[in-house]
Amino acid sequence: MPKGCPPNVYSSACPSRRVLAVLAEKWTLLIVAQLAQGPMRTAEIRRKVDGVSEKMLIQTLRKLEGYALVSRRSYPEVPPRVEYRLTPLGRSLARLAGLFGRWVERNVANLIRAEGNGVRPHSPESVSESRGRRSVSA
Amino acid sequence: MPKGCPPNVYSSACPSRRVLAVLAEKWTLLIVAQLAQGPMRTAEIRRKVDGVSEKMLIQTLRKLEGYALVSRRSYPEVPPRVEYRLTPLGRSLARLAGLFGRWVERNVANLIRAEGNGVRPHSPESVSESRGRRSVSA
Repeated sequence: MPKGCPPNVYSSACPSRRVLAVLAEKWTLLIVAQLAQGPMRTAEIRRKVDGVSEKMLIQTLRKLEGYALVSRRSYPEVPPRVEYRLTPLGRSLARLAGLFGRWVERNVANLIRAEGNGVRPHSPESVSESRGRRSVSA
Repeated sequence: MPKGCPPNVYSSACPSRRVLAVLAEKWTLLIVAQLAQGPMRTAEIRRKVDGVSEKMLIQTLRKLEGYALVSRRSYPEVPPRVEYRLTPLGRSLARLAGLFGRWVERNVANLIRAEGNGVRPHSPESVSESRGRRSVSA
């Protein structure tokens, strides 16, 4: 850590901000959460994380390896078998990624309903509140 | 929800996947987590979430309003005062976003150390494991 920077994701100069930006990404979260089930080959990850391209999967796994969140084992078979698994640090991120995914799944109906209702046009001249919550009287 | 799609972020056709992709983004997580401290004006959010541009802040707040995660109140003052606050659903997301930020802060030193060490070149022909964990003997 650079001196004078206690980790603080709210500071744009802090390395933790850059790391947050890299990890807060859908494929990263989905792949990490999926690997919590156990070691997997890339083909298996691609089946389980529907829609991820080969290129994006490899890129994400390299990133996760780079942070030592995932380790890669290759077995001397023909054709060579390569498996990816979470490191202990990766498992702790996977728990959070899993929570995030489940939060979205649990709340998606409400989120989409809200989206369908749209945001009321803003009128800064009057006392108003978006989303129809009670108005301010004081 | 479309019929036949129990919420599943691992399915690319499921609306929850799209919502996950929209929410898994650094500014969204930082702004939501910061709003857990209480209602704020945009200038205050910009001070607290260092580095966010006016444009990105407004765009993110609109998105959060669109999902009813944030509500916007405007007060009839001169100049008009506008405040943003979390809805109950937004507060539940903010807890997760806060956990994510703290996870990064707690682990950034290890993540950056790993990054500095780099990933060993892959040699699929031999039994090997990235990150120097013990090799596979069976």
